Amino acid sequence: MSRVKNAVILAAGIGSRLRSIHNDKPKGFLSLNEKPIIEESISRLIYSGIQNIIIVTGYKREFYESLTKKYPFVKTINNDFYESTGSMYSLWKANELIEKDFILLESDLNYELNALQVIMNSKEKNLILLSGKTAAGDEVYVGVEKNKIVNMSKNISEIKNLGGELVGISKISFELYQKMFAHSELQFEKNKNYHYEDCLTDLAASNEINYKVIEDLAWIEIDDEQHYKRAVEVINPLIIKRDSEIQFSKKVERNILLNPGPATTSDAVKKALVVEDICPREKEFGDLVEGIRKDLVKVVHGEDTHEAVLFASSGTGAVEACLTSVIPENKYVLIINNGAYGKRMQQICEGFNINQIKFDVSFGDPINLLQLRSIVEKNKNKLSQIAFVHHETTVGILNPLDEISKMAEEYNLEIIVDAMSSYAGIPIDVTKYKVQYLIASANKCIQGMAGISFVICDRDSLNKTALYSRRNFYFNLFDNFTFFTKQKQMQFTPPVQIFYALRQAINEYFLETGEGRSKRYFEMYEVLKKGLRELGFKFLVDEQHHAKILTAVIEPENQNYDFNEMHDFLYDRGFTIYPGKGAKVNTFRIANMGELFTEDIYNFIKVLKEYLIIKKLI
Amino acid sequence: MSRVKNAVILAAGIGSRLRSIHNDKPKGFLSLNEKPIIEESISRLIYSGIQNIIIVTGYKREFYESLTKKYPFVKTINNDFYESTGSMYSLWKANELIEKDFILLESDLNYELNALQVIMNSKEKNLILLSGKTAAGDEVYVGVEKNKIVNMSKNISEIKNLGGELVGISKISFELYQKMFAHSELQFEKNKNYHYEDCLTDLAASNEINYKVIEDLAWIEIDDEQHYKRAVEVINPLIIKRDSEIQFSKKVERNILLNPGPATTSDAVKKALVVEDICPREKEFGDLVEGIRKDLVKVVHGEDTHEAVLFASSGTGAVEACLTSVIPENKYVLIINNGAYGKRMQQICEGFNINQIKFDVSFGDPINLLQLRSIVEKNKNKLSQIAFVHHETTVGILNPLDEISKMAEEYNLEIIVDAMSSYAGIPIDVTKYKVQYLIASANKCIQGMAGISFVICDRDSLNKTALYSRRNFYFNLFDNFTFFTKQKQMQFTPPVQIFYALRQAINEYFLETGEGRSKRYFEMYEVLKKGLRELGFKFLVDEQHHAKILTAVIEPENQNYDFNEMHDFLYDRGFTIYPGKGAKVNTFRIANMGELFTEDIYNFIKVLKEYLIIKKLI
Repeated sequence: MSRVKNAVILAAGIGSRLRSIHNDKPKGFLSLNEKPIIEESISRLIYSGIQNIIIVTGYKREFYESLTKKYPFVKTINNDFYESTGSMYSLWKANELIEKDFILLESDLNYELNALQVIMNSKEKNLILLSGKTAAGDEVYVGVEKNKIVNMSKNISEIKNLGGELVGISKISFELYQKMFAHSELQFEKNKNYHYEDCLTDLAASNEINYKVIEDLAWIEIDDEQHYKRAVEVINPLIIKRDSEIQFSKKVERNILLNPGPATTSDAVKKALVVEDICPREKEFGDLVEGIRKDLVKVVHGEDTHEAVLFASSGTGAVEACLTSVIPENKYVLIINNGAYGKRMQQICEGFNINQIKFDVSFGDPINLLQLRSIVEKNKNKLSQIAFVHHETTVGILNPLDEISKMAEEYNLEIIVDAMSSYAGIPIDVTKYKVQYLIASANKCIQGMAGISFVICDRDSLNKTALYSRRNFYFNLFDNFTFFTKQKQMQFTPPVQIFYALRQAINEYFLETGEGRSKRYFEMYEVLKKGLRELGFKFLVDEQHHAKILTAVIEPENQNYDFNEMHDFLYDRGFTIYPGKGAKVNTFRIANMGELFTEDIYNFIKVLKEYLIIKKLI
Repeated sequence: MSRVKNAVILAAGIGSRLRSIHNDKPKGFLSLNEKPIIEESISRLIYSGIQNIIIVTGYKREFYESLTKKYPFVKTINNDFYESTGSMYSLWKANELIEKDFILLESDLNYELNALQVIMNSKEKNLILLSGKTAAGDEVYVGVEKNKIVNMSKNISEIKNLGGELVGISKISFELYQKMFAHSELQFEKNKNYHYEDCLTDLAASNEINYKVIEDLAWIEIDDEQHYKRAVEVINPLIIKRDSEIQFSKKVERNILLNPGPATTSDAVKKALVVEDICPREKEFGDLVEGIRKDLVKVVHGEDTHEAVLFASSGTGAVEACLTSVIPENKYVLIINNGAYGKRMQQICEGFNINQIKFDVSFGDPINLLQLRSIVEKNKNKLSQIAFVHHETTVGILNPLDEISKMAEEYNLEIIVDAMSSYAGIPIDVTKYKVQYLIASANKCIQGMAGISFVICDRDSLNKTALYSRRNFYFNLFDNFTFFTKQKQMQFTPPVQIFYALRQAINEYFLETGEGRSKRYFEMYEVLKKGLRELGFKFLVDEQHHAKILTAVIEPENQNYDFNEMHDFLYDRGFTIYPGKGAKVNTFRIANMGELFTEDIYNFIKVLKEYLIIKKLI
């Protein structure tokens, strides 16, 4: 499902018809503008998002090899027999470096950027780019049928139904490459002067090799003086003009993330990332942040009493901000740990030498409230806060915010709730439950992107911390808050683009409404629960404690079962599942947060069932 | 230059011709699908990036007012005289809430999403959307000339050159609205039944009001039973089909950021943000992070000796990470402060109670190396590190990395360099200069986006810190490093999209080459220096100490000079400049980092000159 990131450039050939122009350089080192055409091609590939470029060298290899010193994303491999072999031998040779799908190009091409965009945005796994008529003199004609190629030939009479002319830019899947590799090895026994076009023709009947025509594509392959002249006078000026006008386009597949965040986002949230560059010290950006601060508080109904303090960090950063800023020096925090995130709170306090009382529960068990009460009672004089995780995603348990909050109030303690994976997914009212500090991040149920975390603070509680002796700097809650209120800005440089995406995500939350969002999540959970049960799975946590946003599923005890294999099977089909994490029994985990719908869960169950049948697990 | 974020919906009308269908509801509450058409319109606006929606109510206002409770981005204002006034009266009334450019819509429209995309992506400040022939029966025809509208009328005989039919979706600049407001007030004295179409016609001759035709736009205004039937049977199904197929498009203007980062980025870096959702615990993402870690080190030539440790935070986060992780408990760090960022290092050590010796220099003065040596000599037994800022953007000074590094080596001390605004802009070699810790972030001269910071650490030095007693958690350098090497992942959730942008930015850095980048920056600096001098400006820092990436300019002593006014004049024209920060003399600052070119600096000087002339400052 992932985008092509690799390119292979065939550059072994001699180009004897061009000697008069380029002297002793290989063809790719002809120049039409400032840089040789091979470097222009590399630029286009990089601007299109290609990350690794393999060049197959031969004639005058040292020219191409010099590029690897300049560009760390370029690797070369040599075809020693370039004088007597065809292009397929070069491509066969590149086997040592090819591990993924790739774009295949020839070294002597001058082409417009649009050629790469079209081919990279296409869904087809194997795609041959064709153009309209060029009259270049050495055209390779491509015969097609429906959406597939049939054959290629320089002899037009061999073509039954002409699709267009071969440009020399193609997308080749790793799967097809492996077949080409195997097939060509057999051919080489008879004939090493075998070309990749011939190989594609040979494999066309038994493989899905699609094509795409761009009728008026600006491109030229420079093989002789005539071509060079045409490139200089006609094609290159056209390419410069078109490339300067290009509007970047990119198609994005929809993946179904069933990991507990970062969650699947909407298309509009993704596109909201792309904005005009702006200095975050501008008022315009300050207004954006201020609006987001207000609306994040609205989600939990604290607009009259609470303030949101935002950080550029992961969610853990905001947990650290809260714990290192609000516990008075001479007091203790009681930390409930029934999962990895409760434990992390304890680790933060250890890192900073903050006084804590630990209440440890097996991962997977609910909190025993009587036991909690007796610990609180015993320590009531030294405690200032109770800290815990609302939805503990280690196991998918929902800890009882209402009852713990009531108990805290009774003992005049504040509560610190890590609501990372419940905020905006499960209805929370910070005034009804008296929550002094609620911590969450942008990339979970609010459906924005990772990079922003926040603490929603009771204003009066927060103001009290102004005089506490400092343990931190970047994450000081009160100082960051003061900066917002005085300067209307983030104290430290914010992740600008992630803020625009969060703005869009919050708007979409309100559009769906809080009730609508949790209803959608819970409906997905019901479909998931039923589906998993029907497949014979059991759950780690008692149903009454399910958070309904993540479900920890007990792993089958069957030698055919292998989590990684199951994961990869699903991943290849667009579904991302998550391993377990230190629960009392081995589990894997399925979350149902993000821009997902019951239909996605039905599809997931269907694909999971397929896998279980193949592996004889059901 | 900024995108339209506001919409005004005119919803005061009675819609008497529709009584039979919608009983006692106002027109916007007709339903074609699940939700009333007004709510469908709101959804389309939100998905298109609109952030504030003003509805002008009248007939049955309580229906629309109920939306404000559901949607915090909706505000209403009432036209009390809706029975006797035209639509311009409603729009005039909205004056209390209109502060910016907006999209104007009618409440009874059913339309495809593409209508909003086209109008929001247009450069024109005032744009009236037209469609081809609808034969609806009550068309408003629009007369045009060149790219401007001339008049509008329901009587086609009044139209000289037909542009198309008015859809009822328009972009109105705040400037035009103010004129409409003033003009309509005069009209109301004679006639309150005055419509916004009439007002636009009246103002068309003296204002640039453009139009855009979408020939086959799917849309309908529902005014009577006939329309309703057509909406149900033809238009609405077409809209559903087209909206489901839409490819989001967005045009992004190029802003010239002359603030010291976040810097202007390339289009390809911006588009790299938009990727398929991925769980950052997947191997695919781990590989991305690993590649970035390696390449960040390559930029400063430390591939054999150094390791990059990345954080989800602003640059300050990485400074905190370094200072709180690498100074042994019983040792002192000497911190040189000749600008706000040197001072910030001192503040971090104060926040964490880390032993430090402060060397304070006036903001704007270079470091006196003899003085530094004598402080080092005096404290040589207790010191472990010297920490300083390489390019101090408070004043644009370049502190001498080579000489300080030599001195540190002599005394067997490590150095901690905040190279936030020099990394990738000024050549640095961490092995030649013996830099143990170099700190930078993604959004400066490497030309990525904010959200990722990093420390490039000498491996041996870093490994020594494994046993140091901990002062931190989120920012522990060694623990985060260990997580990379053991798990091939970030320890805490990374800002996924910012990583993809950074990958692209690094590739573009290597494409340009290190020499190419600093050459480009320094050429811009020369143009800037010359241009500012010719305009009579003086610089804070002696030229020999200029970093050549930021220049602090002394503010003119002239009562006509006002920084904010100058800033706003330039900002409106796409140039962002930056105020001074605590230097010994008042300054403003101009940076030349990011995807900018000498041409941009020439243009900046030209626009600055315009301003100075207008204000009689030259």
